[in-house]
Amino acid sequence: MYDFIIIGGGCSGLPAAMYGTRLGMKTLTLAELPGGLITTTHLVENWPGIKSISGPDLAISLMEHATASGAEIKSERVTNIEKVENSDGQTIFKVKTGSNEYEGKTIMIATGTKHRKLGVPGEKELENKGVSYCALCDGAFFSEKTVCVVGGGDSAAKEALFLSKHANKVYIVVRKDILRAEPANAERIEKNDKIEILYKTEIEEILGAEKVEKVKFKDGKEMPMDAVFMAIGHIAQTDLAKELGVELNEKGEIKINRRSETNIPGVFAAGDCCDTGFKQAITGAAEGVTASYYAYHRVDLNAYF
Amino acid sequence: MYDFIIIGGGCSGLPAAMYGTRLGMKTLTLAELPGGLITTTHLVENWPGIKSISGPDLAISLMEHATASGAEIKSERVTNIEKVENSDGQTIFKVKTGSNEYEGKTIMIATGTKHRKLGVPGEKELENKGVSYCALCDGAFFSEKTVCVVGGGDSAAKEALFLSKHANKVYIVVRKDILRAEPANAERIEKNDKIEILYKTEIEEILGAEKVEKVKFKDGKEMPMDAVFMAIGHIAQTDLAKELGVELNEKGEIKINRRSETNIPGVFAAGDCCDTGFKQAITGAAEGVTASYYAYHRVDLNAYF
Repeated sequence: MYDFIIIGGGCSGLPAAMYGTRLGMKTLTLAELPGGLITTTHLVENWPGIKSISGPDLAISLMEHATASGAEIKSERVTNIEKVENSDGQTIFKVKTGSNEYEGKTIMIATGTKHRKLGVPGEKELENKGVSYCALCDGAFFSEKTVCVVGGGDSAAKEALFLSKHANKVYIVVRKDILRAEPANAERIEKNDKIEILYKTEIEEILGAEKVEKVKFKDGKEMPMDAVFMAIGHIAQTDLAKELGVELNEKGEIKINRRSETNIPGVFAAGDCCDTGFKQAITGAAEGVTASYYAYHRVDLNAYF
Repeated sequence: MYDFIIIGGGCSGLPAAMYGTRLGMKTLTLAELPGGLITTTHLVENWPGIKSISGPDLAISLMEHATASGAEIKSERVTNIEKVENSDGQTIFKVKTGSNEYEGKTIMIATGTKHRKLGVPGEKELENKGVSYCALCDGAFFSEKTVCVVGGGDSAAKEALFLSKHANKVYIVVRKDILRAEPANAERIEKNDKIEILYKTEIEEILGAEKVEKVKFKDGKEMPMDAVFMAIGHIAQTDLAKELGVELNEKGEIKINRRSETNIPGVFAAGDCCDTGFKQAITGAAEGVTASYYAYHRVDLNAYF
């Protein structure tokens, strides 16, 4: 019986594992992708205290910190979580993976998100070589360059506005004939000389040898391009949570409070799969750490009463 | 005119400064104590990603990260903050220091706390040499040792329970004849063989050459001791906030929401001076970063409308 089972081994799960073990809880971390989504980022410059580090190296640091604290991390994919009552009438959670079943007094769901992919040739091959899913992360690398943002929503608008601070030219590639931006952002884009919207336009292929060089549109035209930023959304990986009965918001994100608690006592959540407005590695880490603390309180209560 | 003025240069202020400048805001950080309270901690082992670092070194890392991002940090003590309307009818904040006055479109208050001191001889001299204000931070250094916790509230009870996982013997030194612990914690203490409560007892002096060796009580008795943990409270440094009209809770802490917003639009707060339940360096950093993001949104709105 574990005190605390963490599902997800990214920037939220690993710090939670470190704190959980420091607090004396028997803590298990089940990490399908050890290190999480940050491992797909080539350069992280906004983890406070570390000026510049590769995504994989940051993941390794968090992993080593957790294991040095005594954390038990298993590379298993969770397939199901069940809430049951044990023989003492206490609520516990059964966490099933492909090969095992674990029992925990508390759990934390930190299963992150997936970037929605455009699904065109060149996208996968040139990821981190000009194809990016995060303007805030990578925008500064394209100072004075020509870039485009793919997407028709407010996210695309915001990404373009942010990129215009760095790039010389920013195209927004919109499939339909309308950019569904918030009025404030729409007006800003209109006033911004660097930004140009390409309506009714779809990318057919992203081309380049070592890095993005140009894009080819469905009408056959080609355009030189240094970077392609995808702003077509994220998918919160919350199927496990939903099946367990955890409350989600309209975007499918787990609703948490400032204690990282969900609607189910004993079930915590942290990081990108949650309804936090500004999702960063550091905010996810703090949510994970906070979850550990309140899990510790709950476990301690269970232990004594 | 600054976009974002950060008052406080600790673990919340410095990451906020780093993010603020990265987001393109003209950001000023006013730090009375550059590095903040963490500089008084000899060893930090719970900043995710860094297994072990001295408090001052962590502060330097955060400082260097902020300045490398372009942050402007001044070592000035803020004496007053005023909310005024400028000639365009926009709310701005005048931040006065001993020697200057600055104007900001948004501000963040991250003025931290002070540990309440016992005020006995030896306390200051042996701080970090056995005298500690944080069991969670320093408890593990006293494995198998004899320690005491000074305090009569639930904090003292919780600190003692936590310390009993490491130390061989934990005394709780209580001035009155009652320990005001939550029932759950009181019961746990009763069942815990390692913990002993010394009622109607007050420390007169903490003794030791290089480190804590013993304590002397007011009744003249002496007791060998390896560490003295003070659990007599923190004082949130929120006078500036209060004078500005920022809403505080019953403990005098600034009330913030998940966006690090206070009750006054444009005034954000982060870190130990806030009403967050579990205050850690990493949670303060996340609150600071979050404040930067929402300040950026507000400034951007001001700029365009």
